[in-house]
Amino acid sequence: MPLDLNSDLGEGFGAWTMGDDAAMLDIVTSANIACGFHAGDPVIMRRMCALAVEKGVRIGAHVGYRDRAGFGRRAIVMDPSELRDETLYQIGALDAFARAAGDRVRYVKPHGALYHSAGRDRRYADAVIAALAEYDPRLALLGPAGSRLEDAAVARGVRFVGEGFADRGYTPAGALAPRGTPGAVLHANEAVAQAVSIALTGGVRAVEGGEVKVMAQSICVHGDTPSAVEMARRIRVSLVDAGVPIESFA
Amino acid sequence: MPLDLNSDLGEGFGAWTMGDDAAMLDIVTSANIACGFHAGDPVIMRRMCALAVEKGVRIGAHVGYRDRAGFGRRAIVMDPSELRDETLYQIGALDAFARAAGDRVRYVKPHGALYHSAGRDRRYADAVIAALAEYDPRLALLGPAGSRLEDAAVARGVRFVGEGFADRGYTPAGALAPRGTPGAVLHANEAVAQAVSIALTGGVRAVEGGEVKVMAQSICVHGDTPSAVEMARRIRVSLVDAGVPIESFA
Amino acid sequence: MPLDLNSDLGEGFGAWTMGDDAAMLDIVTSANIACGFHAGDPVIMRRMCALAVEKGVRIGAHVGYRDRAGFGRRAIVMDPSELRDETLYQIGALDAFARAAGDRVRYVKPHGALYHSAGRDRRYADAVIAALAEYDPRLALLGPAGSRLEDAAVARGVRFVGEGFADRGYTPAGALAPRGTPGAVLHANEAVAQAVSIALTGGVRAVEGGEVKVMAQSICVHGDTPSAVEMARRIRVSLVDAGVPIESFA
Amino acid sequence: MPLDLNSDLGEGFGAWTMGDDAAMLDIVTSANIACGFHAGDPVIMRRMCALAVEKGVRIGAHVGYRDRAGFGRRAIVMDPSELRDETLYQIGALDAFARAAGDRVRYVKPHGALYHSAGRDRRYADAVIAALAEYDPRLALLGPAGSRLEDAAVARGVRFVGEGFADRGYTPAGALAPRGTPGAVLHANEAVAQAVSIALTGGVRAVEGGEVKVMAQSICVHGDTPSAVEMARRIRVSLVDAGVPIESFA
Repeated sequence: MPLDLNSDLGEGFGAWTMGDDAAMLDIVTSANIACGFHAGDPVIMRRMCALAVEKGVRIGAHVGYRDRAGFGRRAIVMDPSELRDETLYQIGALDAFARAAGDRVRYVKPHGALYHSAGRDRRYADAVIAALAEYDPRLALLGPAGSRLEDAAVARGVRFVGEGFADRGYTPAGALAPRGTPGAVLHANEAVAQAVSIALTGGVRAVEGGEVKVMAQSICVHGDTPSAVEMARRIRVSLVDAGVPIESFA
Repeated sequence: MPLDLNSDLGEGFGAWTMGDDAAMLDIVTSANIACGFHAGDPVIMRRMCALAVEKGVRIGAHVGYRDRAGFGRRAIVMDPSELRDETLYQIGALDAFARAAGDRVRYVKPHGALYHSAGRDRRYADAVIAALAEYDPRLALLGPAGSRLEDAAVARGVRFVGEGFADRGYTPAGALAPRGTPGAVLHANEAVAQAVSIALTGGVRAVEGGEVKVMAQSICVHGDTPSAVEMARRIRVSLVDAGVPIESFA
Repeated sequence: MPLDLNSDLGEGFGAWTMGDDAAMLDIVTSANIACGFHAGDPVIMRRMCALAVEKGVRIGAHVGYRDRAGFGRRAIVMDPSELRDETLYQIGALDAFARAAGDRVRYVKPHGALYHSAGRDRRYADAVIAALAEYDPRLALLGPAGSRLEDAAVARGVRFVGEGFADRGYTPAGALAPRGTPGAVLHANEAVAQAVSIALTGGVRAVEGGEVKVMAQSICVHGDTPSAVEMARRIRVSLVDAGVPIESFA
Repeated sequence: MPLDLNSDLGEGFGAWTMGDDAAMLDIVTSANIACGFHAGDPVIMRRMCALAVEKGVRIGAHVGYRDRAGFGRRAIVMDPSELRDETLYQIGALDAFARAAGDRVRYVKPHGALYHSAGRDRRYADAVIAALAEYDPRLALLGPAGSRLEDAAVARGVRFVGEGFADRGYTPAGALAPRGTPGAVLHANEAVAQAVSIALTGGVRAVEGGEVKVMAQSICVHGDTPSAVEMARRIRVSLVDAGVPIESFA
């Protein structure tokens, strides 16, 4: 089974930069591009889309809360219809750049606090899926398997793509172990091994021991530090070495 | 010759409102809808697009400088390529709502300080036209006749639609008389007469006397005060009474 | 016992306005002035402070979440230390204008969603009180009696001033009846009577019947619509007629 | 004559960082701290002020245009009275953190495009000086010698402190050579020598040859890259070696 590698890209703003986007575009097959709400701006969005197309990487709308000060990491309690409209706005804006680059937005992935709220709260999940389907029902939703986002996508007939994490420990229930607990964040060697385990066995060893299923068609890798880029590169190499085809899901 | 009536709509933000949008949508044939940079937000954009489609009014992207604090009325000296990208972002975002409402963006009109800078400075005009053409070369550009915007549109093969003003005095050279000078702002009766004059004769009487040509396929009317709405209504009625068909150019 | 009347003022932004600030400054004794985070901007803050000083009205910092799009009405889950810093920033900014007008900030009142979160959550209440005390421990905190804000103020030795609402129904427990429930929003005659009842008896009739204590040294009145202004004026007149001295607490 | 070293600090925003602030605070005597308009936020402002006080560095308000997207580097054409109010707001906000750290704002320096507009345009210069004097007439203004800012400060009785640049070439007229022209940007060795020349002789060699006076009580150094930090460190060491006392002007 082929596996996709996705990463959050284009998360600078104006004079500020975040991570090594160009390096990551040589590693991943799907680029979650920020749409200007939690990060990103029109200049960055154009550059990211052009680079992604040049390197054959699929473009996804990384939609977030309208909260640049909090980088989209703070939950904002809002009306689901407003969330739907803010999601639609972001998809449309990014798609203009994707089209200008010769491709188009292929999927949507919620960012940060929205990833978590929409994963837990069906009303928020429905809002994100409604915007996606309104824009183009052929778009996929990339998110946490077994979440309300998956439920909402399935209910609406939207293709759902589950993602796994190479560098995060899983609880026996299949959730991510909370940051700060033992085993929550894996070091490079463990992360590489976990990625291969997800790809070959569909599961990982839980932080408290025992096997847990991780149904993932995509693995999320990071590029915010040089060592994160290096880890992502090793994950890709190890997957290829293990015979796993690295291909976009989209 | 049919005449279009256009107005700036959807210029609220969050809890703040601006003008009587619903009333204006019964008067105009083209709605210049703010795209979230100088005014407007996703909730307002959805409502405006839905209302416009319901009332048979054409949707235009009213693109502006990213300057909510200044309502897009302050010139910002920026790189033309950044202006192009900010324009493309706004068109794409609004088009998502236009499509959700069952139609699509038909034209672009620069707002406020951008209307003036792009009207005077060919580099800015080219930037706006480049974004328009990149998004969809069939879109029209609504702006001041005889301006750099017209030059840039013609050079790129983009349809240009000149607009006239009912309530503003013109200099003998065909420019708007600067606010604060005698005759710069017309009262209701004069504005109604000037609109009819533009429609029937293609010209108006200049503030300093003499006739001046005003090549306008569209007249811009305002809705920010109850008396502005009333004036807009009278302009429409008087044009219809004078036998001028009121139709969108798009 | 004298009673203070307070109102939320200066809640426009740039070209947008909100309510009739000038009219309200003739009615109230304390002006909760927005500090630029949920509403307000430097030009408005200067004008409000100058007008307040001219009319002998006390200036309070109406601090809110950094959320102009949501007008500060949406809860944002944030680190308390960040809330403390954002509160301190707002107090300092407003005080510059209060001093320029010849007075200074006398009290702090949290706005909207922050009023509610800091009223319920002691960590947020402590953050607001910490910023207040850091800036000037002589400032008062205006907020809901019996709340975590009162607890936090008392614990820190900060003067707490409880406020009551003329136009909102109270539950037998002394809380505001949730909007949407019967009796939650009072009409003008009832609101006027309730204000007088709070002033003379220290209590009101609860929505479900029975008396409930409302310990308020200040009554919050609104100015966002012409009828709200008229109600506020009637409340003031009725209190004066009932022999209640209308005086700022600060 | 003692010389001051100043640097722009605290120019991150939320999750974004800019430069090595901690390293620079070991080098400079004056910290131009961003106030949240072009960069900076309350959390960063608190941290910067605390660090500056801890290291004995003077705190200055680095005021800029309200333009985070452009990092304050784009000229915004605005009403001088609005600029005055935006400047006052920023000074007051930063001073709250300076006071919380046990010191206070000692001077004001305009940032980026505002540095240039207020240096050239007396109306803007007067607006900045008016805000400074309104807040505290004992504050100094740090800016380009011979500019409209100096004129405005002198006219208002405000102390003006001229600054020089170590790493920028000067024209024979004493202005900075425009970036992109030969000799406009100096390499490390030249910059170190130029700093010493300014300190010891009050002049530098102009890009086109010949001596030019540079009346500077402060030298501006940068910390946005590791090599910039290293250059700043060498400048300080060389000045000390040359017997120049490094002291804040404030």
